[in-house]
Amino acid sequence: ANLETKNESKVLVLYTGGTIGMMRNENGALVPMANALERMIRKAIHLHDEKYATARFGAGNTHKAPLALPSLGPDAKRILYTIYEYEPLLDSSNMTMDDWINIAKDLRRSYELFDGFVILHGTDTLSYTASALSFMLENLGKTVIVTGSQIPIFEIRSDGRDNFLGALIVAGTYCIPEVCVFFNHKLYRGNRTVKRSNGSLDAFDSPNLPSLAHFGIDVHVEYRSVFRPVTIDRFRVHSILNRNVCLLRLFPSITIQTVRALLHPPIEGIVMQTYGSGNVPSNRLDLIDELRRATQKGVLIINTTQCCHGAVQAIYETGAALLEAGVIPGADMTPEAALTKLSYVLSKDEWDLETKRQMMMTNLRGELTLPHTKLDKEM
Amino acid sequence: ANLETKNESKVLVLYTGGTIGMMRNENGALVPMANALERMIRKAIHLHDEKYATARFGAGNTHKAPLALPSLGPDAKRILYTIYEYEPLLDSSNMTMDDWINIAKDLRRSYELFDGFVILHGTDTLSYTASALSFMLENLGKTVIVTGSQIPIFEIRSDGRDNFLGALIVAGTYCIPEVCVFFNHKLYRGNRTVKRSNGSLDAFDSPNLPSLAHFGIDVHVEYRSVFRPVTIDRFRVHSILNRNVCLLRLFPSITIQTVRALLHPPIEGIVMQTYGSGNVPSNRLDLIDELRRATQKGVLIINTTQCCHGAVQAIYETGAALLEAGVIPGADMTPEAALTKLSYVLSKDEWDLETKRQMMMTNLRGELTLPHTKLDKEM
Amino acid sequence: ANLETKNESKVLVLYTGGTIGMMRNENGALVPMANALERMIRKAIHLHDEKYATARFGAGNTHKAPLALPSLGPDAKRILYTIYEYEPLLDSSNMTMDDWINIAKDLRRSYELFDGFVILHGTDTLSYTASALSFMLENLGKTVIVTGSQIPIFEIRSDGRDNFLGALIVAGTYCIPEVCVFFNHKLYRGNRTVKRSNGSLDAFDSPNLPSLAHFGIDVHVEYRSVFRPVTIDRFRVHSILNRNVCLLRLFPSITIQTVRALLHPPIEGIVMQTYGSGNVPSNRLDLIDELRRATQKGVLIINTTQCCHGAVQAIYETGAALLEAGVIPGADMTPEAALTKLSYVLSKDEWDLETKRQMMMTNLRGELTLPHTKLDKEM
Amino acid sequence: ANLETKNESKVLVLYTGGTIGMMRNENGALVPMANALERMIRKAIHLHDEKYATARFGAGNTHKAPLALPSLGPDAKRILYTIYEYEPLLDSSNMTMDDWINIAKDLRRSYELFDGFVILHGTDTLSYTASALSFMLENLGKTVIVTGSQIPIFEIRSDGRDNFLGALIVAGTYCIPEVCVFFNHKLYRGNRTVKRSNGSLDAFDSPNLPSLAHFGIDVHVEYRSVFRPVTIDRFRVHSILNRNVCLLRLFPSITIQTVRALLHPPIEGIVMQTYGSGNVPSNRLDLIDELRRATQKGVLIINTTQCCHGAVQAIYETGAALLEAGVIPGADMTPEAALTKLSYVLSKDEWDLETKRQMMMTNLRGELTLPHTKLDKEM
Repeated sequence: ANLETKNESKVLVLYTGGTIGMMRNENGALVPMANALERMIRKAIHLHDEKYATARFGAGNTHKAPLALPSLGPDAKRILYTIYEYEPLLDSSNMTMDDWINIAKDLRRSYELFDGFVILHGTDTLSYTASALSFMLENLGKTVIVTGSQIPIFEIRSDGRDNFLGALIVAGTYCIPEVCVFFNHKLYRGNRTVKRSNGSLDAFDSPNLPSLAHFGIDVHVEYRSVFRPVTIDRFRVHSILNRNVCLLRLFPSITIQTVRALLHPPIEGIVMQTYGSGNVPSNRLDLIDELRRATQKGVLIINTTQCCHGAVQAIYETGAALLEAGVIPGADMTPEAALTKLSYVLSKDEWDLETKRQMMMTNLRGELTLPHTKLDKEM
Repeated sequence: ANLETKNESKVLVLYTGGTIGMMRNENGALVPMANALERMIRKAIHLHDEKYATARFGAGNTHKAPLALPSLGPDAKRILYTIYEYEPLLDSSNMTMDDWINIAKDLRRSYELFDGFVILHGTDTLSYTASALSFMLENLGKTVIVTGSQIPIFEIRSDGRDNFLGALIVAGTYCIPEVCVFFNHKLYRGNRTVKRSNGSLDAFDSPNLPSLAHFGIDVHVEYRSVFRPVTIDRFRVHSILNRNVCLLRLFPSITIQTVRALLHPPIEGIVMQTYGSGNVPSNRLDLIDELRRATQKGVLIINTTQCCHGAVQAIYETGAALLEAGVIPGADMTPEAALTKLSYVLSKDEWDLETKRQMMMTNLRGELTLPHTKLDKEM
Repeated sequence: ANLETKNESKVLVLYTGGTIGMMRNENGALVPMANALERMIRKAIHLHDEKYATARFGAGNTHKAPLALPSLGPDAKRILYTIYEYEPLLDSSNMTMDDWINIAKDLRRSYELFDGFVILHGTDTLSYTASALSFMLENLGKTVIVTGSQIPIFEIRSDGRDNFLGALIVAGTYCIPEVCVFFNHKLYRGNRTVKRSNGSLDAFDSPNLPSLAHFGIDVHVEYRSVFRPVTIDRFRVHSILNRNVCLLRLFPSITIQTVRALLHPPIEGIVMQTYGSGNVPSNRLDLIDELRRATQKGVLIINTTQCCHGAVQAIYETGAALLEAGVIPGADMTPEAALTKLSYVLSKDEWDLETKRQMMMTNLRGELTLPHTKLDKEM
Repeated sequence: ANLETKNESKVLVLYTGGTIGMMRNENGALVPMANALERMIRKAIHLHDEKYATARFGAGNTHKAPLALPSLGPDAKRILYTIYEYEPLLDSSNMTMDDWINIAKDLRRSYELFDGFVILHGTDTLSYTASALSFMLENLGKTVIVTGSQIPIFEIRSDGRDNFLGALIVAGTYCIPEVCVFFNHKLYRGNRTVKRSNGSLDAFDSPNLPSLAHFGIDVHVEYRSVFRPVTIDRFRVHSILNRNVCLLRLFPSITIQTVRALLHPPIEGIVMQTYGSGNVPSNRLDLIDELRRATQKGVLIINTTQCCHGAVQAIYETGAALLEAGVIPGADMTPEAALTKLSYVLSKDEWDLETKRQMMMTNLRGELTLPHTKLDKEM
């Protein structure tokens, strides 16, 4: 053990499932396959440096010892990683709040033992998971990267290799204490992402915030954009979520029955997707009355926009009726971020209703942009 | 009247309301103002050529005669246009299916009298209106352009001038027999558009189909992309719509109560926004049972994707359960197109349920892309 | 004169020529037309508020008094502007260094009298002029905007209106003490621009620096990107330029005769466009010898890349031979910026050769990006 | 040997050198290394299926037999490939017309033996090589793909794997009888490409023609865009090129000495990069005289634009003087395409001067877009 162990970085990989780890079964179909990913990675010379691992951990432990990413250059840290595979492997379409809680608890259990974390995940609900975790992981001080791929990592043509490698490199090298998404050579803040395409390898987008880093010949990190919390406190996992939330997208001639059905107990919070800058039909008094009745009963109603790019600000004009009805402006949160934040905020028993309302408007994890200061917008 | 009247083109402008026509009131606030737009346009030399109009229609009729766009060059048709203002002016957030029906009827009434049509509309629900009209206007043989603007046309800084001019030029010059949207120098198929931004002047997008034309120094039209119906028939307006439709966007841990509430009678059709390529949680038998029960009762359920770019194809794997449950794959329709098409199809009393199901999967107005033929996708 | 004159801003418009001001002659052809632009603008209600001007300057002076932009809102400054037309009007293809010097001198003459400056210019060499002026205007403390258009301002369809208005608004409202280019709703640093398209209205690009501002519904200025000189000194115009400069773009099998012909006296400086990150054929000793001979005779040779995006850094590997030959790395300067900077630097008699060499590598006006610090690039 | 050999496709890989094949030497520096690439590929399970190769070619020949790409799926052809390594390996900065001729001759020699061809090449002059080959390979009936990478293929983080795999897949699967460039998941027509960035993995662009194919989850080929020659003839290599060509980029105040120096014998052809739509200073009679004198002596002068996007058409206005002076409009050719085409055309002894002039304006290999027909551009 004469190696310089100080220049190493330890990453925990939570392999929850998803396309990235799928293998072909005997019929040639791509399926999740238990206990196969790590075995395959151990044989892949571009993902595991067996020689280094043997020298470092001894020859006897080759199937239990951490994996070792091949050298990234003389000055770079050597990244050692451990894969923890979920059982059963999860299809991301099937994931629920319980799974988010499990992931969060797994991170808490291993938090002190590793320098960074990678979560392998199906792409379908990846942005929901990344958004939820960003809130549940309180006072996060280490880099957490959620990634996956459109094509399995061991297919001949695959985006999985680059996504996995990029995630390991960011998690093992940079201190970006956020829940991030790495995909197609770009690093995004997780709660800003949406799945933008189901066919392209450029599958994710961050419509209201530029990427935090991009990989070219060199790696370029936008350190000015990394979220820095105001207070510093001990890492903690909030492992409760409120399921009584839902989404309501407005459309012309939506019936009051539909609105009423969605606002019905036990619903405690609802994310509305309204028009443009947060507009609802001002001549639909039935609708606004219904919303007011709900907020008066304590339901949190968040106003977000159907537009992919843009925000609902507190001082909207046509929105006066909404503000008066107790509806909370949701700024530029994605539906995924608004919904998971709502579920998180509603589960905070230590907060009273007014605090919860305020928290929905507060920038907790970089998930929303507060209105520009006068400096930036003079006209 | 010695002018060559043959080289003229007549456009009807339906001014329904919206930001484009707003004016400042005495307090400096931007508001809709009745009977003001045409009066202002008559004074704007870049929008109206009074000299030509007087020579053409006589001096006595200046306030009733059509407006005349200034010359677009020696070889271009002179565009004459008539503005028909709605009373009251409509805020697009307030628009309902009744308003779409009124617009469609107004088009029918004037169809033979004009060469092309422009609809001025607020941007908030513009894509819904354009989508709905594309279905309601059957066997359309003339160009219909829906446009609006982010800043009123008579503000100093405004995108309204270019949008209005561009719409008039396309409607008066080109034969693109579709309901189109013109915005920010680009012409889109209307039922392919979504409002992408509430702050940028580039407010609309057509995520799954390239633009039909763009305006640079020259005008470039992609004639190969213009929709050509298979059958040719007389223009007709279908002026009934079914309001018993709604939208359901899936999210992790959505409660069965929420799904059930939305599928409740009198709902007859529902557009689901599922994950990725059309996936729902395959382990949520409760949810799939609920969907099956609804389709068995005759509810049409359309499967579209939450991804901005992409399609739900008929042959999806995880979607087998959905197909079996009677859910209809929605290809690459936008939520706006799927919802308005559903409302249109459900209102067709002459079609039985199976025909309605088939129509939802058929390319009626270029609103969806059928799967690539073998030629295009060999791997 | 009871108006609140304090809330006004005075802008000088230098109308040098170009497409933006062209008019149709009797044959319908677009041509430059002397003494026509201001006359037309005085009649255009969206560009000139005659009522305000009369109240402000009296009725008798209407053809000499400044023009007044209509109100931009209750809180915005009223922008008054004076057009100074060049005689004869200049075709930008015909512009020379003498014209740049004239423009610079005109700015000096009027510098104290106005709050901001707009230069109307043909698009063909606009980026050369903006680059040159950025160097010639030393210690600039006021906003200078160069703009033009692809279609004349008084054509029916035109980008000239928005470009002119945007330039006036920026020059009259914001303090961005740089030579900027405003085009297609975006504000760029002038010496970063290139003309990217001769057909699109989006004619300019700033390939190595994001825009400084963009116009949507609101105006968003990136104040963090505005160039701030280290020293503050009195504004001064450097009105000499050295013409003995040229451009040399490498290509495979370029003959030594071609290189030699370009390096021949009286040439004193040359901008090379090399491959990739600044590479030349390392096996072409004849070429490198020729370059060395030239630098030894005092010729400044700047190494820029043929790639639109990217930089030639001081520490390139294949470039060792070039450094040894005395070639100066040009970072990410555009050809336009490198060439005009070279002409400027060579004309500084007060600097010795070594100072001139150093200046070519120094960030004088935000025209080049110095290599990232260690912080930004850890791998 | 019971394998179905009919469903195989044979690809020849010409490994000329470049970053893609570089390896780390004992000092950790990336260098070209002879006889290493194939050896490494034979060990890379994602690039070579040893089991298949052994079954197919016998165990004894493992180091001489073709390489076998792992299966791309049950219906896809199995791609076998042979690597022919250049000796010495070539740095693309050092490549000359002689190297292009060698590559062309190597393709001719092997043309009948393989189904498709991949050329591994450094990125710096890759677009020049692809452009030159597109002309030299006459009546090409098979797919030729030029590719390379920004990071070596056996580095941990690398774009080389995807570029190499993609090129092999296209060359072995699709019939696109052109010289193409494959890079960053996109397939371009080779003579339309330029190297756009020296730092990004998205290093190439095709500014005036959309990509021919792109790789997402599926492969999408735009068959309508594939170039189809009018005549069908036997494949032939034109292996002579004329070196007496050069590039001249105009800039304001360019001295007549510079122009004269470049037009000096033995120069026989010159690609000018003029302003905008093909403009030169119309008041520089000295310059136009110099050009006229040259064309009268038989020099071919091609007029291309400095703008990345756009074309120089035959009917330009300010260009009347140029046409009269015998300058040939270059449409939307890149500098790389124009220069290599000129070199090719000038070397055709069987063509007289007028034919050569005509050929420069003719679309020989899809390298230029002829003006739109009336249909596409009505205004």
